[in-house]
Amino acid sequence: MGNARLAHLGVIVHRLDTAEPFYARLGLSPARRESLDRERVRVTFLPVANAEIELLEPAGPEGPLSRFLAARGEGIHHIAFEVDDIERALAIAVASGMRAIDQVPRPGAHGTRVAFLHPGSAHGILLELVERPQP
Amino acid sequence: MGNARLAHLGVIVHRLDTAEPFYARLGLSPARRESLDRERVRVTFLPVANAEIELLEPAGPEGPLSRFLAARGEGIHHIAFEVDDIERALAIAVASGMRAIDQVPRPGAHGTRVAFLHPGSAHGILLELVERPQP
Repeated sequence: MGNARLAHLGVIVHRLDTAEPFYARLGLSPARRESLDRERVRVTFLPVANAEIELLEPAGPEGPLSRFLAARGEGIHHIAFEVDDIERALAIAVASGMRAIDQVPRPGAHGTRVAFLHPGSAHGILLELVERPQP
Repeated sequence: MGNARLAHLGVIVHRLDTAEPFYARLGLSPARRESLDRERVRVTFLPVANAEIELLEPAGPEGPLSRFLAARGEGIHHIAFEVDDIERALAIAVASGMRAIDQVPRPGAHGTRVAFLHPGSAHGILLELVERPQP
């Protein structure tokens, strides 16, 4: 991961409809919305100069995001690093002692493939690996 | 802040001496260490392709970082955005309804000037504005 690129910060909010205008006042406007039904979450990506902020609103009271929001409130949920080869990056992470939440990559937003690593094995940070779709 | 650049993620850890080898195994090696005595913290910056991770170790049991670590454990502490004109960015943030922790910029690491904005006014995120030293 030495050449990994910080792709986005996942930020959990109660409601996109409230958080988006807040960020818009700071000059950060939504680029795209998406619903990830399998994850029970609605997301909006806000571009900054060199990365993105991903706002996450739990869709319904079930699921890990709702539990996170209830336990810890709004705030940063995860950090996503873009890698060229997600299988390789995942193998390196596991070999380094990190615990994979996803043993194999799964579909993420916008055609990406993603895999999460457990915060308990990474100094409290929920890490996401992201591989963009091949052009 | 529409053209703001994500400068670093502040990550609080119990001990730099434990966290640094963990990140080194992932290919992220420390670029520089610094002690910020006024803040009672020791920091290490780990460069990634387009930003940095700032590891923060509280220096002693007093201060807000120690309280954060005791209350929430290791994890992401703040997000820093680099701005060209920190006075202007701070004024825009306050005009947007954010609460400034620093009413005026103060010295940060490596000759920067910084100002923090309160997470209670920013959907749970402790935001840092950073202006680099003029060349």
